[in-house]
Amino acid sequence: MTVRKQPVLGILGGGQLARMLALAAAPLGVNTLVVDSAADACAGQVAPLRLADWTDYATLEKFAAEVDVVTFDFENVPAETAHWLAERVQVFPDPRALAVAQDRLAEKTLFRECGLETPAFHAVDTREDLDRALASIGAPAILKTRRLGYDGKGQFRIKQLADADAAWAALGAQATAHGLILEAFVPFERELSVLAVRARNGDFRIWPLTQNWHTDGVLSLSLAPAPKVNALQQRAEELARILAERLGYVGVFALELFVKDGQLLGNEMAPRVHNSGHWTIEGAIASQFENHVRAVLGLPLGDTSARGFSVMFNWIGELPDAAPVLRATDGHWHDYGKQSRPGRKVGHATVCAQDAATLAARIGDVARALTREEQAMPAVRLLAD
Amino acid sequence: MTVRKQPVLGILGGGQLARMLALAAAPLGVNTLVVDSAADACAGQVAPLRLADWTDYATLEKFAAEVDVVTFDFENVPAETAHWLAERVQVFPDPRALAVAQDRLAEKTLFRECGLETPAFHAVDTREDLDRALASIGAPAILKTRRLGYDGKGQFRIKQLADADAAWAALGAQATAHGLILEAFVPFERELSVLAVRARNGDFRIWPLTQNWHTDGVLSLSLAPAPKVNALQQRAEELARILAERLGYVGVFALELFVKDGQLLGNEMAPRVHNSGHWTIEGAIASQFENHVRAVLGLPLGDTSARGFSVMFNWIGELPDAAPVLRATDGHWHDYGKQSRPGRKVGHATVCAQDAATLAARIGDVARALTREEQAMPAVRLLAD
Repeated sequence: MTVRKQPVLGILGGGQLARMLALAAAPLGVNTLVVDSAADACAGQVAPLRLADWTDYATLEKFAAEVDVVTFDFENVPAETAHWLAERVQVFPDPRALAVAQDRLAEKTLFRECGLETPAFHAVDTREDLDRALASIGAPAILKTRRLGYDGKGQFRIKQLADADAAWAALGAQATAHGLILEAFVPFERELSVLAVRARNGDFRIWPLTQNWHTDGVLSLSLAPAPKVNALQQRAEELARILAERLGYVGVFALELFVKDGQLLGNEMAPRVHNSGHWTIEGAIASQFENHVRAVLGLPLGDTSARGFSVMFNWIGELPDAAPVLRATDGHWHDYGKQSRPGRKVGHATVCAQDAATLAARIGDVARALTREEQAMPAVRLLAD
Repeated sequence: MTVRKQPVLGILGGGQLARMLALAAAPLGVNTLVVDSAADACAGQVAPLRLADWTDYATLEKFAAEVDVVTFDFENVPAETAHWLAERVQVFPDPRALAVAQDRLAEKTLFRECGLETPAFHAVDTREDLDRALASIGAPAILKTRRLGYDGKGQFRIKQLADADAAWAALGAQATAHGLILEAFVPFERELSVLAVRARNGDFRIWPLTQNWHTDGVLSLSLAPAPKVNALQQRAEELARILAERLGYVGVFALELFVKDGQLLGNEMAPRVHNSGHWTIEGAIASQFENHVRAVLGLPLGDTSARGFSVMFNWIGELPDAAPVLRATDGHWHDYGKQSRPGRKVGHATVCAQDAATLAARIGDVARALTREEQAMPAVRLLAD
C-alpha cells in the first residue's frame, strides 16, 4: 500500500482566523502550517507554527517547500512577500486580489467598475489635495490611510471643514508612505456584509447577508440572516460574483456594505474569512472556514445555507464569563486562546435558534446574565420587529 | 493584567477520538496534550503528542504535571496506569468505571444490577466451565475474552455444541490472562446505542437513540435519531442515568443495546466517546466531543437535541473518494489523517437532512456515487418506511 501524503495548507498569519481555518481543515484531512512573527500566535495552539517575519525569506523558502497551498489569515502581508511565495507555491487568493484589497483607492475604484456604488471619495496625497477633496465632498467626511488600516485604525473623522488641519496633523505624515483617501461620511441605515466563496473551477456561492453593528470601529454584534433584505440578497450576490470573477478570486472574501435609501454602497473588501462570518460555524451548513479550505484546496464547495437564525457577540479586550453562553440552548463559545489586551479580539459567542422570537429571547437572557444588554440590544430590537 | 493560563486536557491514547476531542476542546479555550506510544498517532496532527507506553511512568509523571484533567481515547489503558495517574491529577471518568467497562463479566453484572437485562452469560475460566456454560446457555452462543476485546476481536461464535473444542482452541489460551465469558447469541431485531453524558455536578443528558449496523463486527452505519423507538428512548435514559450514578461517572459514555421482542438488552458499555455518536458533530446541537470536554472540565453541558436526521458512514481500511460526500447537501467529511490498513477506522462521513425522505435520497445518491449501495441500504430502507 502506498504511503499517503496529506495536503498541507500554509497560512500567513497565526491569529484567530488561522486558528479557525486549521480547526476546519483537520476533518478534511488537510494539515495546517502557520507562519507568524509572534511565538504566542494563537493558531499555534492547534497547528505547527513557524516563526518568521514577512521578509525572512530563508524561513519562508522552507515554509513554501513544506506546504501545498498558501493562504492568508492577515490581508496586510506585503504584496512583495505574497508575489515571492506565488512564484514557489500556489497562493490563494491571488496576490493581485490582495493588492487591490490593501488599497482603499484601488478597492473603491474597482467597486465602481463592477457596478457597486460607493460613498464619494478622493485620493489625497498632499495638504492641498485634502482641501480640494473636502471642497468637492463636503463635511462630514472621513480621512483614511489607503493602506494598512483596519478596525477603525488609521482614520480621522472630519465633522466640519475646519477640522482639516487636525486631520492632516493626525494622518498627514502617512500620506507619503501609505497614501490617504477622503471618503464622504454616509449616514447609512444599516451595515451589512456579504460573505462569498469562489472555487478554483469558478463555482460561486454566498451566505445569507449578515447585519453588523460596530462599537469604536470594531465589530460588536452580527445577526444573520439579516432580516428584511428583500432584493438586496440577490443584488449582493450579483455584485460579489462580478467582483470575484474580475479578480479571478479563489477562497472566501467579505464585502462590507452600507445600506442608504435602500441601496447598497460598497465600504470595503476583506480578501479572507471575516469576523462577520463567524456565525457560519454553527449557523450555516458549511462555515466560511470550511469553504475557504475547500476552495483553496480545489475541493467542491459546501452548502452556504443558514440553519436558522444566529447572533454573534464579539468579545473585545477580555472574555466575559462563558457560563451564560454555555448554558444557553444552541449557545456556542469561541475562546481564541489569547491573552487579554484592550481592543484585542479575544473570542466570540454565537447563539442560534430556529425562529427570530426564540433567538431574541435567548440573546436577551445571555446579555442580561453578562450585564451586556447594550451589546445585544440592536439585534434584540430587530428580531422583535 | 494577570497572565492567563488556559486549562489543558490530557488524553490517554491519540487516535481519532482524541483527535476529535482536541478539535472540540479548542473553541472552549481548552488546550490538549495527548499521550500515545505511536509517533504517527493521528491526534498528533492537531495537538502536541508525548510518546510513551502505559508503563513509562517517568513520561507519565511529566504529562500529569502538564495537564489539569486526564481523560481517555482508549478504554484499555491498564487500570494500574489510570489509578496511578488519578493519585496525581484529576482523571475522568473515574478509573473504577474504566475497570468495570474493561471486564465484560463485571459490566454485564452491573447492567443487571441496574435493571438492564442482558443476554444470558457465564464466566468461563476453564474448559470445564465452557461445557457447563454451554449446557446452561445452549447454542448458538459467543465465547469472548472478558478483557481487551473490541470491534469483534477476541470473539468466537459457537454455532452448535460441537464447536466447543474449536472455540477453546481459539481463545482458551487467553482464559488465564484475560478471563473468558460465554454469552447467549441473541437474534436481535435492532442494534441501538445510547450516548449519554454526566457532568461533575451530576447533570445528566442523553442524545437521541442511534440505530447501528455492523459488518464483520465493526460499525458500518449509524442512523439518528433511531426511528420508531417510542418508549425505548425514555427507558434508555433511565437506565443510562442509573448506571452513570452508580459509577459516579463523569463524561460521555455509550451503551450498546440490542432490541429483542421490543425490550432493551445491554450488550456493552464504552467509557468514552463512541463511534456511534460521531453523527452528533453536525447532527446535534452539542456533539459528544464537546460535551465530553465540557463535562470533564466542569463546564455546563450543552444541548443534546438532534438538529434533524443524520446518517454516518464509517470508512474502514481506506477512504473512498470524498467528492460525493462534499457535494452532497449537508454532507460532512471526516478524514482522521491515518494511513490505510485493512480493518482500520480511517474516517467517516455524516449526511444530514431535515426530514427522513430527504435524508434517504441524499444517502442513496452518495452511496451510488461511491458504489457502496450495500452500506447505505439498511438506513435507506428504514428511512423510507
